[in-house]
Amino acid sequence: MVIFGIDPGIAIVGYGVLEYKGNKFRVIDYGSVQTTNGNNFPTRLKIVYDEISLLLDKHKPDALAIEELFFNKNVKTAITIGQARGAQILAAVNKGIEVYEYTPLQVKQGVVGYGRADKRQIQEMVKILLNLDKIPKPDDVADALAVAICHAHSGNFRDLFKMK
Amino acid sequence: MVIFGIDPGIAIVGYGVLEYKGNKFRVIDYGSVQTTNGNNFPTRLKIVYDEISLLLDKHKPDALAIEELFFNKNVKTAITIGQARGAQILAAVNKGIEVYEYTPLQVKQGVVGYGRADKRQIQEMVKILLNLDKIPKPDDVADALAVAICHAHSGNFRDLFKMK
Repeated sequence: MVIFGIDPGIAIVGYGVLEYKGNKFRVIDYGSVQTTNGNNFPTRLKIVYDEISLLLDKHKPDALAIEELFFNKNVKTAITIGQARGAQILAAVNKGIEVYEYTPLQVKQGVVGYGRADKRQIQEMVKILLNLDKIPKPDDVADALAVAICHAHSGNFRDLFKMK
Repeated sequence: MVIFGIDPGIAIVGYGVLEYKGNKFRVIDYGSVQTTNGNNFPTRLKIVYDEISLLLDKHKPDALAIEELFFNKNVKTAITIGQARGAQILAAVNKGIEVYEYTPLQVKQGVVGYGRADKRQIQEMVKILLNLDKIPKPDDVADALAVAICHAHSGNFRDLFKMK
């Protein structure tokens, strides 16, 4: 199974592509799509959509795993990042790829088996599970790999996380 | 100038297409794209994106005018509708159409010249300005026509409302 993980955003969209087979991971690709406010928002949205679409064409994943957004206060940020996440979901559904979503808590549980793990522990676990020399940077990339790992580990419960 | 107005949403997306020439309006088309929760969210996003894309192909507007989202409290709703609005913006930018956004207050000012106008006054004004027999339903359609009128009336200040 090939899993495409995304940490949603507009300035930096982290992505990680993993193959998961017989309880083992193989890293296929990871990185980030970045846009600056030198472009207007619609153009940034198009850049993100086009780049993610190209990556999906290249890797033909079986599933897209994307983090759920959580904002306590800033509704303006929620709307902005929501719009970007919409473009990322659309890139997948336009290729007929199923979308799964995981809360930050579920990602922690799925990666380290412990919901109170801190960011550093998650990143170390990503490095270990994927046999990487170092933690990928920026954090958004490690987060995208983490959500892909989480999806791999969701096993028989996977359907619970299919985006409704 | 042909203007495509959108009242963003996911269950109901109102749209209105107007020609504005010599201070006069001609109604080209209006209606709504509707999706139900019988489909999952990614599929609903695709339906909205595809339908809006078809309408843009058909009417080839010079500009997309879309309402800004305002939510005081419900961040979850803000994210959901933000995602849908992202798909609507993307449909426009993928056709090379410029996107303009107006707050609800600006729409009121742009349509009736008075920021404290109530919903019914806006709708009556839409009916009068566009020479319609009755107020289009659902409200989302009247709102989409209102934002298109607002863009027409923004005149020399139009660039202020171009999405950044």
